[in-house]
Amino acid sequence: MVVTPKVIVFDVNETLSNMAPLAARFVQVGVPAYLAGEWFAALLRDGFALAAAGGRAEFSLIGRELLRKVLSGAHLNRGFDDAVAHIIGGFRELRPHPDVAPGVSELRSAGFRLVTLSNGAAQIAEKLAADAGIGSDFEAFLSVDDAPTWKPTSAAYLYAAERCGVDPGDLLLVAVHPWDIHGAAVAGLRTAWVQRGETPYPSYFAAPDLTVRGIDALPGALAAS
Amino acid sequence: MVVTPKVIVFDVNETLSNMAPLAARFVQVGVPAYLAGEWFAALLRDGFALAAAGGRAEFSLIGRELLRKVLSGAHLNRGFDDAVAHIIGGFRELRPHPDVAPGVSELRSAGFRLVTLSNGAAQIAEKLAADAGIGSDFEAFLSVDDAPTWKPTSAAYLYAAERCGVDPGDLLLVAVHPWDIHGAAVAGLRTAWVQRGETPYPSYFAAPDLTVRGIDALPGALAAS
Repeated sequence: MVVTPKVIVFDVNETLSNMAPLAARFVQVGVPAYLAGEWFAALLRDGFALAAAGGRAEFSLIGRELLRKVLSGAHLNRGFDDAVAHIIGGFRELRPHPDVAPGVSELRSAGFRLVTLSNGAAQIAEKLAADAGIGSDFEAFLSVDDAPTWKPTSAAYLYAAERCGVDPGDLLLVAVHPWDIHGAAVAGLRTAWVQRGETPYPSYFAAPDLTVRGIDALPGALAAS
Repeated sequence: MVVTPKVIVFDVNETLSNMAPLAARFVQVGVPAYLAGEWFAALLRDGFALAAAGGRAEFSLIGRELLRKVLSGAHLNRGFDDAVAHIIGGFRELRPHPDVAPGVSELRSAGFRLVTLSNGAAQIAEKLAADAGIGSDFEAFLSVDDAPTWKPTSAAYLYAAERCGVDPGDLLLVAVHPWDIHGAAVAGLRTAWVQRGETPYPSYFAAPDLTVRGIDALPGALAAS
């Protein structure tokens, strides 16, 4: 085992949670599902702009304000504020991908310490894990709300290392988003990319140490590394 | 006049250029126009992630690689490489919004020095201005390709100030994107937001010094400030 983390750090949105129901909520308020993709990319774009330029804001605040633009001119089937509340409320109802609970339980049984680290609120991750019956497998649900800046700045990952009481190199960051892998690698963490689709890893981001098809493939990939 | 810039720095994509024909190119290769919005937001998201974490890549490289994901599973009416080339090639054919040429000419006649500063290639801005007959109004077409990092990091705006030989506070950054206004304000520049739609300015970014409906409204707004 070349990759021997003391603590495994999971990203939350899309890495643990299946965000498809969030797109369904756009349909439920009367607009096309495809707007969810643009909205979520724009949410991260603005959060990263703050991280790059200096400044910060809560994930849910950026999400709410950007809905004003994404939903502008749309024929909603309810009042604007109700539509925004319905969409944002969807984050609390997300469920994990089917590979998550078996993978997390196996990693915990193998003795790894497990935490989450999200650009969103810690409560979202905590509820997601609890609803899936794996809440007790995690020793902490961390959020950049308590860190100097958002991921993918180094300060966010170093905050996680400090909270866990280990060196950055003893952390393995697990994420579906290449930008998260890149930021963790720059900060000195080991990385595992969860490739759920067929899109190859971008050439312009630091490559992951491991690539797996789901969280349930991670125990084997670590053992084989 | 409270806002008295020596040099006016224009963002390029969407601030000077009308990007609607780029969405049309998605339709021309056989996929929905709405994919253009998600693709452009994701392009900036990944560029800003590099700026925040450390690292850099060319705008067009990120754009090409992200098309692999955005176009995955789509039924293109031509080969994948041809579709990517057709979409990326669209940047070179963009034209300015109708308010741009009159506004730029008036600002130049009023004695302001004018430059552009783009996260994309300088050649795109140069061709856009030349095709619109306002190429000679600009003294330089600057790109972050020659700066330490992308906008909205301070280093990108300070690069522009250095190239122009003026203090950051003597520059006025003109942009349609709130993230650009924020970055420029953090770097010490004065700012003018071009509000072409009805979406209000986000609360989480530093507010602009001036707000105008188009470039042709900027001379009056400066005189009235």
